[in-house]
Amino acid sequence: MAGCGWARAVRGLLLDVSGVLYDSGADGGVPIAGSAEAVRRIKASGLKLQLCTNETQATRENFVRKLRALGFDVSVAEVTAPAPAACRLLRERGLRPHLLVHDDLVPEFAEVDKTNPNCVVLGDAAENFTYANLNEAFRLLIGMEKPVLISLGKGRYYKETDGLKLDVGAYMKALEYACDVQAEVVGKPAKTFFESALAELGVPPEQAIMIGDDIVNDVGGAQQCGMRALQVRTGKYRQGIRWIYGGAVGCSEPLGVHVRGPWDALVIFTVTTWRPWEPGMQMELRGGTGQTSAGVTQNLLLPRGSAETVGRGMRN
Amino acid sequence: MAGCGWARAVRGLLLDVSGVLYDSGADGGVPIAGSAEAVRRIKASGLKLQLCTNETQATRENFVRKLRALGFDVSVAEVTAPAPAACRLLRERGLRPHLLVHDDLVPEFAEVDKTNPNCVVLGDAAENFTYANLNEAFRLLIGMEKPVLISLGKGRYYKETDGLKLDVGAYMKALEYACDVQAEVVGKPAKTFFESALAELGVPPEQAIMIGDDIVNDVGGAQQCGMRALQVRTGKYRQGIRWIYGGAVGCSEPLGVHVRGPWDALVIFTVTTWRPWEPGMQMELRGGTGQTSAGVTQNLLLPRGSAETVGRGMRN
Repeated sequence: MAGCGWARAVRGLLLDVSGVLYDSGADGGVPIAGSAEAVRRIKASGLKLQLCTNETQATRENFVRKLRALGFDVSVAEVTAPAPAACRLLRERGLRPHLLVHDDLVPEFAEVDKTNPNCVVLGDAAENFTYANLNEAFRLLIGMEKPVLISLGKGRYYKETDGLKLDVGAYMKALEYACDVQAEVVGKPAKTFFESALAELGVPPEQAIMIGDDIVNDVGGAQQCGMRALQVRTGKYRQGIRWIYGGAVGCSEPLGVHVRGPWDALVIFTVTTWRPWEPGMQMELRGGTGQTSAGVTQNLLLPRGSAETVGRGMRN
Repeated sequence: MAGCGWARAVRGLLLDVSGVLYDSGADGGVPIAGSAEAVRRIKASGLKLQLCTNETQATRENFVRKLRALGFDVSVAEVTAPAPAACRLLRERGLRPHLLVHDDLVPEFAEVDKTNPNCVVLGDAAENFTYANLNEAFRLLIGMEKPVLISLGKGRYYKETDGLKLDVGAYMKALEYACDVQAEVVGKPAKTFFESALAELGVPPEQAIMIGDDIVNDVGGAQQCGMRALQVRTGKYRQGIRWIYGGAVGCSEPLGVHVRGPWDALVIFTVTTWRPWEPGMQMELRGGTGQTSAGVTQNLLLPRGSAETVGRGMRN
C-alpha cells in the first residue's frame, strides 16, 4: 500500500479558487489570509500548479485579471475552467446552445453557433437567474424532442463576501425536475474535467493533490479520478456538516481531510479501520492532532492545529 | 371486483382548476371551452363538487372572485387549497415561517407568527422567485439546525395563457438540493390534502373521482388516496409524454385516462392485462375507441372521441 499512501511523491497541485484562495463577491472579493503567499511558496517549491475552478461568472482572461489584482501570481494558462470545456463539447456534438449564464461569460461562447438552439447551457448566472430567464430556458428544453441540458458545474452553493449564494447546481436541479432530464455536467466533479486539468498540469493523478472547499465537487471528484484530495475549512466549509460521498480511492487513505484555515495548518490522518457506512457512523482514526504525512506538508504548508476526516466511511 | 370498478357509484367529484377549468395568466386567464357549462351540469346532476387546487397565487377569496368573473358558479367553501392547510400545520407544530410566496397569498398567513423564522414556506411565488429571494430563503434554511422546508405543492410546471411556467416544485428541488433537505409537501399529491378535500366534499374516496391535468399530482395523488382519477388533455397535458406513476388502486382499473378536451369526450378503457412495469412498456387495452363505463359518463359527460391510458403498468 506504500505506493498509494499520502507519503508518496507529490509533483503537482490542483487548486480550487473561490473559497480557497479568495472569497468572491460583487466587490471583486477578498483574498483569504495567507493564500497569495501560499501560491508563491507552492511555485517556489518546484511543485506544478493548476487552478481547477468551476468559475463561470467571467472569462478566464477577466478571472485571471481579477486574481492578479488581488495579489495572486497566476496566468490564463494556469486556469482550467468549464466554459472552454463546454465549447469543445458543443463543437464535437454539433450542439447550438441557448445560454443561461453570467453576462461576463458570454464572450467565451463567441465562436459558437447559437442560432435555433438544440440545447441549453447553464452556468452560474447569478443575477441572470430571473424568473423570466428560467422559464425561457425551461420552455426551450421542454419543447425539444430530446432535451439536452449542459450544466457548468453542479455546486450547491458558494460563499461570497456578503454571504452564501445558491450555485448553478440548485438551478440545474430545478430544470432537471421540471423537464424530467438529467443534466450533463461540464466542470468539477466530471472526470473528464479533472483529466483536462491534469493534462494541463502535466502530472499523473497519483502524483497530484486537489485542494478545495467542496467535499463533493472538489474532494469527491478528484478521488474518482485517482487523485488525493484535501478539504480546506474556509469558503463554504461549515462545522458540523457531515457529508456522505462515495470515493473510489482503492486503498486505505482518508476520504477527505479538513484543514483549519487553508494555509496555516495541514494535518493528515491515517485511517486504520474501514467499515461499510452506516447512518451516524464516523471514521475511526489512528493518532490524533498533529500526525502528518510527508509530501505536501513538508513542502509547502505548516502542520499545526487539528483536523478530522469528514467522510462517512467506505468499504475496505 | 364489481365494487371497485369504474361503474361503481359516483357521488362526488374533485376538480383541479388551472388547466382543467381555465388557463391562468397575468391577464386573469381564460376559461377552457365548455368548462363553465360542465360545472353547471355537474351541480345540476346532483353530484357533489369540490375544487381541489394547488393554487397559491391568491387567497381563496380572490381566487373565487376571479373564477366567478370568468363565469364559474363556485364559492369559497367549495375550494380546497394549500395555504389554509399549511397554516393548520404551522400552528400544530409551533412553526414560524419565512414566506417565499406570491404577494397575493400573504394575507392567508396574516394570523401566523412570522418573527424569528424556524421554517421556510414555499409557494408558487412567480415574479417573487428572484435570485435575491431564493438566496434569502436558502440562507435561512442552511442556517437552521434542522432545516424545515414546507412546499405548497410540488408541481413541475403549469400552463398560462402566454406559455408554460415553472411551478413551485422546481424551486423546491433547488432548495432541497442546496440544503440537503427533503421538503414537506402541503397540497396535492399529499394524502392528507386529498383527505381534507374529501371531508369537505362529504364523500368517501371510493365514491369520488378526481379530474386533473397532472398525472402525478392529480391522478397519482388521488389514487394513493383510494380515489379514481381522470387526466384531461388540456392544460399541461402534452401528447407523446409517457409518465411513470405508482398508483395504489388495488384492482384492475385504468391508472388514468386521457380525455380529449375536458368536457366533450370521456372514454374509459378497461385494462385486461396487467404486467409488472418494464421500461418502454405500455398498457394493453381491451376494446378501443368508444368503450365506456357507466357511472361518470352517463351522469354528466358526453362519451365521444377517443382516449388512451398513459400509465406504464402496475402489478396485478
